[in-house]
Amino acid sequence: MSREAILHAGLLVPAGASGIYARSAGFEAVIDALTRLILEEAAGDGAERLRFPPVMSQAHLERNGYFSVFPHLAGCVHCFMGDEADHRRLVGKLVCEEDTASEFSPSGVALVPAACYPVYPAIAARGPLPETGLLIEVASYCFRHEPSDDLARQQTFRMQEFVRIGPAEAVAGFRRMWLDRAVSLCARLDLPARLEAANDPFFGSGGQHLAQQQRESAAKIELILAAGPDGEDRSCFSCNAHGEHFAAIWGLRLPGGRLAHTACIGFGLERFALALFTRHGTQHAAWPGAVREALGL
Amino acid sequence: MSREAILHAGLLVPAGASGIYARSAGFEAVIDALTRLILEEAAGDGAERLRFPPVMSQAHLERNGYFSVFPHLAGCVHCFMGDEADHRRLVGKLVCEEDTASEFSPSGVALVPAACYPVYPAIAARGPLPETGLLIEVASYCFRHEPSDDLARQQTFRMQEFVRIGPAEAVAGFRRMWLDRAVSLCARLDLPARLEAANDPFFGSGGQHLAQQQRESAAKIELILAAGPDGEDRSCFSCNAHGEHFAAIWGLRLPGGRLAHTACIGFGLERFALALFTRHGTQHAAWPGAVREALGL
Repeated sequence: MSREAILHAGLLVPAGASGIYARSAGFEAVIDALTRLILEEAAGDGAERLRFPPVMSQAHLERNGYFSVFPHLAGCVHCFMGDEADHRRLVGKLVCEEDTASEFSPSGVALVPAACYPVYPAIAARGPLPETGLLIEVASYCFRHEPSDDLARQQTFRMQEFVRIGPAEAVAGFRRMWLDRAVSLCARLDLPARLEAANDPFFGSGGQHLAQQQRESAAKIELILAAGPDGEDRSCFSCNAHGEHFAAIWGLRLPGGRLAHTACIGFGLERFALALFTRHGTQHAAWPGAVREALGL
Repeated sequence: MSREAILHAGLLVPAGASGIYARSAGFEAVIDALTRLILEEAAGDGAERLRFPPVMSQAHLERNGYFSVFPHLAGCVHCFMGDEADHRRLVGKLVCEEDTASEFSPSGVALVPAACYPVYPAIAARGPLPETGLLIEVASYCFRHEPSDDLARQQTFRMQEFVRIGPAEAVAGFRRMWLDRAVSLCARLDLPARLEAANDPFFGSGGQHLAQQQRESAAKIELILAAGPDGEDRSCFSCNAHGEHFAAIWGLRLPGGRLAHTACIGFGLERFALALFTRHGTQHAAWPGAVREALGL
């Protein structure tokens, strides 16, 4: 389905900045239905729900290593902290469309780039993990600075995630389980899907080495659907093994003192919805009965 | 209820920056229930749902007048747009905890400070209004730069709003209806409430005049509940008449060409939830039966 068809149907509406869109009631009904379906899959797992706002401590994001490997995607919240004279200068620059960067200062918070980043420090603050570890259910709006006209690459979008923190073998089992679930969920929604080893968009020339490592170790597996403009492939789900990476940063330790392993799985909700609209049409009332039934629509 | 009691119950969990908290499943259950209750009140009104992400066009926010009157509350998204040499300098500054302001540039997007700000340009882009105007239902995370330890003054919080755009008399009726509804909703939840004329926190000495004008014209009415630390008063709902202010900015015209009036009403969901916990205790399972029934909890 073309960008034009989605916009013409009013499912997404350009909102005055590249990669920022309003969502219609029809689009949101599909997002809500997808969320319900994903949570139903996990209903028996005993996950603990945690919710974080769309901004987080910039120091926490930095300690997670974000500014080392993804500086180009980060969004930092800068604020005006001046007096009335400073304000007159700011307003003058805004009116004259001059660069206002120096009128704003870092506030110490940054936009959340993936729903799981705030989880690791929050769990670390609780102290030692239980023996079998923890399973956290988390969702939020995420921001990545990649302005684009591609509806499947918005600057701000929602992610439904599960994060497993625990013994290595339990974490590996969690990943296998969700790869199976994601594939069977696509079958129920009549979405042709394939899994592939992938890499994150690491910054700079050093990033190429990290990307190759990640692919070779199959640390990141993505589920690919036709969700891009004119049906191009887009990753709509990813399954990520971190080994001891985040556990070492935050001191996430199992009883006895050894570091936990962590993994996260995440559904890109806007992309999944776009895959559904691309496959089945812009009016969800006209989708195949089995798909509507699976989604409760 | 004290800050300590809310934190001790784990309803909100400090997340590493002033005014930023994780929400527990129990807290979110109350937020979801409040949202359902508010939407039920409006079920017969025929509102159109629109959803916006938590960031919006900074140019739209500026055209809404935000940087003139609330510059101190705005959060602008600044991004790193440099090359590998710039990145090495950025990482060095982060490691040494030096000021990184100059390493980031304005991205053209800002955090949404109230759920209704993106609505006016989105509706204006549709062209002339229908004769009876429009009613929009909108909700989002909002950001205001006022770091604080007060759980009822978080930097980032959710607002459930309705926006009425139409003939003056219809817009006035919308305001009266929601003042009544908000009061009766508090009665159902056994929350002692009062209405009062209020003003926005306008910036600077010029702002004092605007505040006085706003109070004298009763353009802003707030509903006050015991939601602050140790039960202090906090505004948990507000009802705002804009006259032709936003209509003139965005060219929102009724058939025939005269400017529409606009008004918005907004529930501060975190504050409303805090009012409920303060009044009825930290465990919603132990709240009075009538309150749980009203909330479907």
